[in-house]
Amino acid sequence: MAVATKEAPRRLGERTFRFPAEPRIVATGSIAGRMEAEGPLGAEFDETVSDSLLGQASWERAERELMRRAVEHAVRKAGWTLGDVDFMFGGDLLNQIVSTSFAARDLDIPAFGLFSACATLTAALTLAAMAVDGGYARRALAAVSSHHDTAERQYRFPTEFGNQRPPTAQWTATAGAAFLLAAEGEGPRITMATPGRVVDYGLKDPFDMGSAMAPAAADTIAAHLRDTGRDPSDYDMVLTGDLAAVGTPLVRELLAQRGYDIEDVHEDCGLLLYDRERQDVHAGGSGAACSGATVAAHIWKRLAQGDLRRVLLVATGALHSPTTYQQGETIPCVAHAVVLEAPRAAGG
Amino acid sequence: MAVATKEAPRRLGERTFRFPAEPRIVATGSIAGRMEAEGPLGAEFDETVSDSLLGQASWERAERELMRRAVEHAVRKAGWTLGDVDFMFGGDLLNQIVSTSFAARDLDIPAFGLFSACATLTAALTLAAMAVDGGYARRALAAVSSHHDTAERQYRFPTEFGNQRPPTAQWTATAGAAFLLAAEGEGPRITMATPGRVVDYGLKDPFDMGSAMAPAAADTIAAHLRDTGRDPSDYDMVLTGDLAAVGTPLVRELLAQRGYDIEDVHEDCGLLLYDRERQDVHAGGSGAACSGATVAAHIWKRLAQGDLRRVLLVATGALHSPTTYQQGETIPCVAHAVVLEAPRAAGG
Repeated sequence: MAVATKEAPRRLGERTFRFPAEPRIVATGSIAGRMEAEGPLGAEFDETVSDSLLGQASWERAERELMRRAVEHAVRKAGWTLGDVDFMFGGDLLNQIVSTSFAARDLDIPAFGLFSACATLTAALTLAAMAVDGGYARRALAAVSSHHDTAERQYRFPTEFGNQRPPTAQWTATAGAAFLLAAEGEGPRITMATPGRVVDYGLKDPFDMGSAMAPAAADTIAAHLRDTGRDPSDYDMVLTGDLAAVGTPLVRELLAQRGYDIEDVHEDCGLLLYDRERQDVHAGGSGAACSGATVAAHIWKRLAQGDLRRVLLVATGALHSPTTYQQGETIPCVAHAVVLEAPRAAGG
Repeated sequence: MAVATKEAPRRLGERTFRFPAEPRIVATGSIAGRMEAEGPLGAEFDETVSDSLLGQASWERAERELMRRAVEHAVRKAGWTLGDVDFMFGGDLLNQIVSTSFAARDLDIPAFGLFSACATLTAALTLAAMAVDGGYARRALAAVSSHHDTAERQYRFPTEFGNQRPPTAQWTATAGAAFLLAAEGEGPRITMATPGRVVDYGLKDPFDMGSAMAPAAADTIAAHLRDTGRDPSDYDMVLTGDLAAVGTPLVRELLAQRGYDIEDVHEDCGLLLYDRERQDVHAGGSGAACSGATVAAHIWKRLAQGDLRRVLLVATGALHSPTTYQQGETIPCVAHAVVLEAPRAAGG
């Protein structure tokens, strides 16, 4: 290696870093659509809507409304105003992440736009935590949105066409989620992050994202455990983004091959958001707001109550586009991880 | 205001922050196409290519090759290996920023994907500087790419159709640019950043990006000067991203209305990259790699030599998509600013 510089003070191992100030997630906001409202977490969202258009002229306009309302719920719950937020880190699935850009315009918060597909949640949490931990922001916002009807027509077929979907397909969540971070105050803490490499096992089927994303999740989880010297049992929960029914056994198997048994602590947001017995979501949920809304509405509360003490949250994303798919390319994937911990008082 | 927390130590005013470690840009890499090679900066790129496909099967594959090669040039010039880079912050204009994701896969560097359209350069430099300054990364990479032929067919008409363009239209640069940042070593420094708000003056013409983006540039420049108490004359150059011939007089006028005269020090990357007298680029250049390649190949050298001591770099981006345009929406824009300074020895 040709480079010799001082070790950066917050680094841990090859790819992980610590946040010594332990930014608090002082409040979250969530909003979800009809399918999500009918799922197991239905009672936990700040708002649910039965109209998939949210009174807007298009689903695209509705999606940005999901993000805007999620942010407003979070700000209200924190007792802040929008002007209290220094910077926003946000993303969504639409081309040119227009949901985020238009929401940022309406919210009037300086914004960094991110795209890691369904891994955007943890990219946004990582960078918001970095901004607060490093003292670049006093208060930062991480926000994501997705909408079944916009994703369907952008990635696959006209939504109204109602194309038949294979059982490996996942259902894009119609939801918005927001997380407010501050260096002080109450709330679950973000203590570490392990960003992901782009991993590509050569899969090409856009109706089987779970199989494509599982290797990226395994890569990041293994890197995190290696960097920290921790074991899966050091976590109350290893929570992947949306590997759903097909990807879930794969990530467990891939990690078992590397000597890590996560089975006892592993959950997946794609399996928590819907009830696959009752709801026709095929393999489970997906979308940037699948993990977003699950964590904002459900996991945050369990951490705040001290019911969960330490969670490794690993959102997963498939980074292809319709163009790359049509040009015969494989599906590169990424998974970014953050460590969420209960408030100091609650979690010990 | 309901919130009372300690002032974050690196903040300056409302929206600006400082990088006390002054991350160095130890090396840059650049690659450009035929039009750019024939322009005024042609001799300064690390590599120029006459084949717009770069030997690839599609322009989309060529665009990611531009990013990959720009990174490899930078790494070679720094005397590093790809494995020396902790994290990459990158973005491009394509749907789902596939150039960045596929390049990150091939480079095998953990990656955060960004989208701020043509403002992506300064978003990437800001976050890479934050990662290095805060000690989260030892060495970080900021990279952007754009390609005339991919942007044309994605945003406007099939490239081969050769649609006639109005004189306000800009020419998307075919180029890639990479910047390697480290906490130590030689090279121009990044000392501050001022992220942008999303600004929308209600313009709707996607063939006149300069007019749409000028208000965002003016907003960020004014915020920066207000936050720092500086005057335009404190800079050797205020360098906007790609406002080109239409947006350049507008940003000067908008700032004059706020009491800031930037005329003596203002330059625009959209006017530096091409020679509008000789080259048929209409209003000038645009694209994430227009400012990227101009700064990597030209401005970085002038800073390294101490010929420029302090530059306010303000990349500008139009955040619409073809979908929002077709749905009759306006064009929201953003501009992120970073302060680049000559190396300590050279710049005093």
